[in-house]
Amino acid sequence: MKSFLPTEEDSHFPIQNIPFGVCQRADGHAHCSTRIGDFVLDLFELEQLGIFDSLGLEVPQPFDKPSLDVFMGLPHQERKQIREAIQAVLSEDSVHKAAVKKIIVPADSVQPLLPATIGDYTDFYASRWHASNVGKMFRPDGEPLLPNWLHLPVGYHGRSSSIVPTGIPVRRPRGQIVLPDADGPIDSASRLLDYEFEMGAFFGGTGNELGSRIDVNCAAEHLVGLVIVNDWSARDIQKWEYQPLGPFNAKNFQTSISPWIVTLDALQEFRVEQPNREPSDPELLDYLKPNSSQGFNIQIETWLKSAAMNEAVKISSGNFREMWWSFEQMLAHHTSTGCPFRPGDLLASGTVSGPTKESRGCLLELTWRGTEPIELPDGSTRRFLEDGDTLTMTAFCQGAGYRIGFGELSAQIVA
Amino acid sequence: MKSFLPTEEDSHFPIQNIPFGVCQRADGHAHCSTRIGDFVLDLFELEQLGIFDSLGLEVPQPFDKPSLDVFMGLPHQERKQIREAIQAVLSEDSVHKAAVKKIIVPADSVQPLLPATIGDYTDFYASRWHASNVGKMFRPDGEPLLPNWLHLPVGYHGRSSSIVPTGIPVRRPRGQIVLPDADGPIDSASRLLDYEFEMGAFFGGTGNELGSRIDVNCAAEHLVGLVIVNDWSARDIQKWEYQPLGPFNAKNFQTSISPWIVTLDALQEFRVEQPNREPSDPELLDYLKPNSSQGFNIQIETWLKSAAMNEAVKISSGNFREMWWSFEQMLAHHTSTGCPFRPGDLLASGTVSGPTKESRGCLLELTWRGTEPIELPDGSTRRFLEDGDTLTMTAFCQGAGYRIGFGELSAQIVA
Repeated sequence: MKSFLPTEEDSHFPIQNIPFGVCQRADGHAHCSTRIGDFVLDLFELEQLGIFDSLGLEVPQPFDKPSLDVFMGLPHQERKQIREAIQAVLSEDSVHKAAVKKIIVPADSVQPLLPATIGDYTDFYASRWHASNVGKMFRPDGEPLLPNWLHLPVGYHGRSSSIVPTGIPVRRPRGQIVLPDADGPIDSASRLLDYEFEMGAFFGGTGNELGSRIDVNCAAEHLVGLVIVNDWSARDIQKWEYQPLGPFNAKNFQTSISPWIVTLDALQEFRVEQPNREPSDPELLDYLKPNSSQGFNIQIETWLKSAAMNEAVKISSGNFREMWWSFEQMLAHHTSTGCPFRPGDLLASGTVSGPTKESRGCLLELTWRGTEPIELPDGSTRRFLEDGDTLTMTAFCQGAGYRIGFGELSAQIVA
Repeated sequence: MKSFLPTEEDSHFPIQNIPFGVCQRADGHAHCSTRIGDFVLDLFELEQLGIFDSLGLEVPQPFDKPSLDVFMGLPHQERKQIREAIQAVLSEDSVHKAAVKKIIVPADSVQPLLPATIGDYTDFYASRWHASNVGKMFRPDGEPLLPNWLHLPVGYHGRSSSIVPTGIPVRRPRGQIVLPDADGPIDSASRLLDYEFEMGAFFGGTGNELGSRIDVNCAAEHLVGLVIVNDWSARDIQKWEYQPLGPFNAKNFQTSISPWIVTLDALQEFRVEQPNREPSDPELLDYLKPNSSQGFNIQIETWLKSAAMNEAVKISSGNFREMWWSFEQMLAHHTSTGCPFRPGDLLASGTVSGPTKESRGCLLELTWRGTEPIELPDGSTRRFLEDGDTLTMTAFCQGAGYRIGFGELSAQIVA
């Protein structure tokens, strides 16, 4: 498949991708959009060209408003047809070349917004490497994993209102922290500000009814696509607050997501087996047993640039295939008690860590609680993030001669 | 203040109350509504009568749609003026008596719906009695309260999508539970289904911006009013899942709220001091120190009726004044890291328990983990809820010759 628009071999956005997002144009107007190469294409204008008219969609004009809410609510088959219709319009054989050339704009001329109304956001803890590392740090004398971890995808409800798109700076949060050797807490700026590299999945289609489950083997059709999620974390606030009800203020000050939802259809050819189970691992309960491969081969990288540096340096690289629990298993578990989902709901994977030191997905692990600081090219070291640091995450799948990527999720820390 | 419409002395809805809700009429249409005595009054029709025209509201017709979303977003002063305008229309001196008599309908002819879009829902743990009881049960050898409890209102993010109005039956959830002496979990209907009596507060007005705080002494103007919340809880699912990230599936299968938002303006005369601090209690950090009384004197009751009983029996009664943390403190703490709030967001207090056995707010406490079953008039006993049980919660403030109440929150357990 080739487009009449040129895309570089290492572009994240060849015609094989066709992600979905919402962008604000230079004139201030926001529109549902897709991206190809270095261009952004307005889906409202494509809709006006009539290219979705023959699809017989449940909602005839899903891109009328500056939000993917309606698109997210369409059944998988219709979302798939829409993406294929866009691919046809952008293909070498397109009859719409002239019209498309008129409406594309440079990607750097638009500002990404949140793609949809996120009703509920849930954050999981699905990497065995991450959970084991955290367990070793905080419970050095016990088993690294708690007894439930291998039986269910552990997760907690997050805060929807503080999810923001790429580019929004992170104000260092204030909150209750207890300094070493102090008797009680102070109200202070966090001193242990961290990032967590996660992937997120947007729920789509008709939601499940209150009291009903989503089958682990049908769950994929309820997932529109994936984004990168940065689950910013204030480790000192977290340590003091999190018992017994879990992380709260340590996480709810900001969560950032990448601009483009890369569809599961685009990612399908990068499906891989999930990690092997160890012989001593317990058998999964039936509702969590997948019949097919539910992992994804997605290469991930995190880059850091201090205020004093001219160029960012890569501080971590790994692969999403290392995740022990799949998004389908998370959704099946989340709905196992009958919890209803609505289009636009977001699931995040938890920190993506791998077996090697460089594949750890947060500073807590990379610096082993600050005991092994990272050295930066500007001569400084990092245990946790400092004001002025810019953190950039990226991810892509390597195909034969092309990449399907997520672009960049970037934000600067401000005081 | 008196209405031209008759209300009994023990009615929850005299002219002093004027709560806000959304009701579905017999014709299927839903409208913003208030209640007086045994009647429901359609606020859309009042709006059409022009009674809000002289107020100069930010949004001229806040009750146009079947949701209080717009009303919730108005500043406190405007919400207050609207309530006072409704009181004037219902007063003895009203010039709208004939028009009102035409539009009121019997309260039992309508069906309560959710009052607004609940963007985010947060559940706290603000009763010292409840937290101490749970601590004694689960950590018998340690201090009943964890070290952070007296320093901050402990809370966690809940699930918005499973919040439902009164009357919706509760399907007994299935999920992962570990039976006594079992090696691992099974996928089973919960055997330890419980209720939790809580009060909830709806956020209103313009939200705070990402990164900004709400002052504990200004927080009340951001709270529209209160409802009763039943935080249904599957104790067996909770016990297995909740470490280390907190309650999740044990709570997200359903949360029920009472039909009417009783405004803080109506409750103002029932403000009381919060419970006395003990001399050994730590001093609060400044951002959590209130200048005035932030408790409420609200009598609360829980009633249970099994399928075999003709009448419900009261199983618990207490008072909301026993809460150690106020809603204002919860909101100040929640925003202390800069977490943004939006109109319609809901805060729940956590289980309301008091010092006596009968004032405990859930079966876990009332039966002390099932070791002291409750005897019911039908000869059966209860450790936890059984299929067919109907649980009804009610709450009211006793004024001089009138009550300001919340009505009933009721639901039946089904298999």
